[in-house]
Amino acid sequence: MASALRLLPSTAARLRFSRSLPFSAAASLFSPPSKAVLYDQHGPPDQVLRVADVPPVELGERDVCVRMLAAPINPSDINRVQGVYPVRPPLPAAVAGYEGVAQVHAVGPAVTRPISPGDWVIPSPPSFGTWQTYIVKPEDVWHKVRDDVPVEYAATVTVNPLTALRMLRDFVDLNPGDAIVQNGATSIVGQCVIQLAKVQGIRTINIIRDRPGSEEAKEKLKQLGADEVFTESQLDVKNVKSLLGALPEPALGFNCVGGNAASLILKLLRQGGTMVTYGGMSKKPVTVSTSSFIFKDLSLRGFWLQKWMNSDKAEDCRIMIDYLLALVQEGKLKYEMELTPFSEFGLALDKSLGKHGSQPKQVLSF
Amino acid sequence: MASALRLLPSTAARLRFSRSLPFSAAASLFSPPSKAVLYDQHGPPDQVLRVADVPPVELGERDVCVRMLAAPINPSDINRVQGVYPVRPPLPAAVAGYEGVAQVHAVGPAVTRPISPGDWVIPSPPSFGTWQTYIVKPEDVWHKVRDDVPVEYAATVTVNPLTALRMLRDFVDLNPGDAIVQNGATSIVGQCVIQLAKVQGIRTINIIRDRPGSEEAKEKLKQLGADEVFTESQLDVKNVKSLLGALPEPALGFNCVGGNAASLILKLLRQGGTMVTYGGMSKKPVTVSTSSFIFKDLSLRGFWLQKWMNSDKAEDCRIMIDYLLALVQEGKLKYEMELTPFSEFGLALDKSLGKHGSQPKQVLSF
Repeated sequence: MASALRLLPSTAARLRFSRSLPFSAAASLFSPPSKAVLYDQHGPPDQVLRVADVPPVELGERDVCVRMLAAPINPSDINRVQGVYPVRPPLPAAVAGYEGVAQVHAVGPAVTRPISPGDWVIPSPPSFGTWQTYIVKPEDVWHKVRDDVPVEYAATVTVNPLTALRMLRDFVDLNPGDAIVQNGATSIVGQCVIQLAKVQGIRTINIIRDRPGSEEAKEKLKQLGADEVFTESQLDVKNVKSLLGALPEPALGFNCVGGNAASLILKLLRQGGTMVTYGGMSKKPVTVSTSSFIFKDLSLRGFWLQKWMNSDKAEDCRIMIDYLLALVQEGKLKYEMELTPFSEFGLALDKSLGKHGSQPKQVLSF
Repeated sequence: MASALRLLPSTAARLRFSRSLPFSAAASLFSPPSKAVLYDQHGPPDQVLRVADVPPVELGERDVCVRMLAAPINPSDINRVQGVYPVRPPLPAAVAGYEGVAQVHAVGPAVTRPISPGDWVIPSPPSFGTWQTYIVKPEDVWHKVRDDVPVEYAATVTVNPLTALRMLRDFVDLNPGDAIVQNGATSIVGQCVIQLAKVQGIRTINIIRDRPGSEEAKEKLKQLGADEVFTESQLDVKNVKSLLGALPEPALGFNCVGGNAASLILKLLRQGGTMVTYGGMSKKPVTVSTSSFIFKDLSLRGFWLQKWMNSDKAEDCRIMIDYLLALVQEGKLKYEMELTPFSEFGLALDKSLGKHGSQPKQVLSF
């Protein structure tokens, strides 16, 4: 069996290859025809994206063919299509999407890793082209994951939860009892930060926007384990630290908003603290007083998961994915998503673009 | 001689102590009467500072009495008097001034360090109260320095040149051939950065204000060893890096201005670079785009010499002072200053406050 072509029984009949050829001719194994979301030029996603049939792809001896199960629409996917993301797939006929979970459909005869048809796998590090029904890539691309979690969590574990986990680990040595502060706390990264911090015994101070429903949003975050949640206007006081009560002054802050919401983090941080910027939802820059640098000794840094991934961290990445999916399985990591069938891609995209008001994260279900 | 009271011959007669007492009674040795610049409350320096007679101070057995030779008026001295500096001497009757050079006048009988009357010494780390004619402090305060450099250099070596040296060492590992960028390049710290970098084979890209005489200022900085000098408006181009010619993109930048001049440093820095803020001459904050943090991976830090001094760096500080004064002696470190007699303190202060237009750094000569 080790060197045999392994196929899911139900699909074996659909693959064409000549039984009369010697075994090396197994290289003529092909994927099923696939449907993909493509773009030929950068621009508004609802104008430049198209769903197209993609012809079967030949499997190399160490290739694995997977059938996608689920893939999210992340803001960075939108930015790549728009052409405003620094790393983008080459045009034309770029397949969109960057993360997701798949089921192994067939493996080439020389595949050596313990990956079998039926297994759930994740492209790890993530890579371009997850918005399509079948994908063929070398075995090294795929990381086998547990299949006892909801498919939408396996599909989204690599970008948002892993960002939260890395930011908690890479900048400041935190000990149980320490506190951190973040804005954009209702984002999925924000929710992951709260829950992952809680697992480590780290307290979280959370900043959210002033808007209708902010009391309900506060309650939701507290149910996830948030220690304190403030709206921006609540922090608009002179002695902001008096609001912290028994919580220690935070040594680390996460900013995904910019503008005033970033300044509030700088105000709350303790002497010598660090603020990490990983997003700019307000589209406003970060503004910092000279004394914050000189007398308060604050450090300002940035985090970009894609750069971290590029620095030869494949094995670390896989260990973290397993850790995060274990937390999901234990009920310690959750966030709201909506599964939308791939056949309704246009609807899922419109929801992601905000055309239907505030919506949960869209995850394409194949 | 080791345990004898040592005095400068010319002043021995002026000190009163009873020759009939046993030697331990040398503790009743007093400094000469002194004149000091004092303040009793914070406020505008030209209103709250006063020159006053200070009574003789008793020397302890391990005290050293010095006669000040020269002490600069630094911007931080002004800020301490104004009350806007985070660390200030207690009021009332605080003696102003923070650095300077002195000549040893007398040493207590139990002084063990090789400090003798006539030696030049520097309070190192610097400490409050250098704007007075005689000072008594424990022997550990004083660092003996060479006396073959101009007195104004010994008086000013600790704050500005040491800031430049530390900033070159503490943030980024630089190798010969690397480049750095700074704004406020005509400041004394800026001039020191240029010269200290040159000693290490590091190239400097310097930013100065647009103003009448900027061509002359450029020429002066180039004579000190600056590789490139630009006015802010010259850098107001889209492809700023095309101006660097053969210079490598800088990994480190120093900001003492803020506002647009800080943004220009961020533009010039290479991917993953660090900007260190140590001043805010424009009184404008530092503004940073989200993408500078995420995609360009810039780090923003601060430097404050007084905090560095507090972290138990006395020995390091003294080694650096010796190194810097050796460079002065070799003609490799220079900057413009004006010696003004202590008797004309009011004039020196007015010049430092900008009342007489742009003036060189004022150094009080005692």
